[in-house]
Amino acid sequence: MPAPANIVWLDEVNWNSEGLVPAIAQDINSGKVLTLAWMDREALYLTLQKRQAVYWSRSKQRLWHKGEKSGHTQLVKEIYLDCDKDAVMLKVIQTGGIACHTGRQSCFFHRLENNCWIEAEPVIKNPKDIYGNDSSWSK
Amino acid sequence: MPAPANIVWLDEVNWNSEGLVPAIAQDINSGKVLTLAWMDREALYLTLQKRQAVYWSRSKQRLWHKGEKSGHTQLVKEIYLDCDKDAVMLKVIQTGGIACHTGRQSCFFHRLENNCWIEAEPVIKNPKDIYGNDSSWSK
Repeated sequence: MPAPANIVWLDEVNWNSEGLVPAIAQDINSGKVLTLAWMDREALYLTLQKRQAVYWSRSKQRLWHKGEKSGHTQLVKEIYLDCDKDAVMLKVIQTGGIACHTGRQSCFFHRLENNCWIEAEPVIKNPKDIYGNDSSWSK
Repeated sequence: MPAPANIVWLDEVNWNSEGLVPAIAQDINSGKVLTLAWMDREALYLTLQKRQAVYWSRSKQRLWHKGEKSGHTQLVKEIYLDCDKDAVMLKVIQTGGIACHTGRQSCFFHRLENNCWIEAEPVIKNPKDIYGNDSSWSK
């Protein structure tokens, strides 16, 4: 179901030429930055309706209710927009404590150390134990 | 000075079709999400060299050393890359405690309340007292 037309707060967002904005998810309790994904108008509308993060998957080219396969939904407590109105930030409770498809708490687990990206966070759960044999999670 | 070619850690970033990635800045002490801006290869290289955030300004179409006019530089303590290697996150100390050109602590000051974006953070310093009569800061 597309978002209804003429919703002022949605129209106020400065969608890019593809109709998207980047959306940061931050853990409302720990403050940890979990994910950066993309939303179109409908995804942001559905995020408010469901109080769970819904994104536009650029790889799948469809709406993506985060956690639809893993169960690792993001329960949305607050929704912010930046000064230029072209970036969204969600404060969320991360179901299962795992936001990343690699089984880590956060997607931002590569840290630059001595000119190398090192893996700075542990895998909490093996992706195979999250997704089974379905490899489509990897995109 | 362009970033030297063949720097492996820069080559590992998945730059978009415009050669850019979104870059989040988070206050390393408070955990507050301050800004979302964009970096090209040179901006990320210079960010590491200077230990201060350098972005690619899409409105100015040039490199933008954050704080170059305001003095509100972002001192970069850690640099992260996400699982897909197409988004950067910086942990920073925000000089002056003001990241936003509106004089607020964070750019993410519009909060959605009852289907309206409300201004949820105070202006700490009047932009005119930061930038004087130079209005180019507004973009």
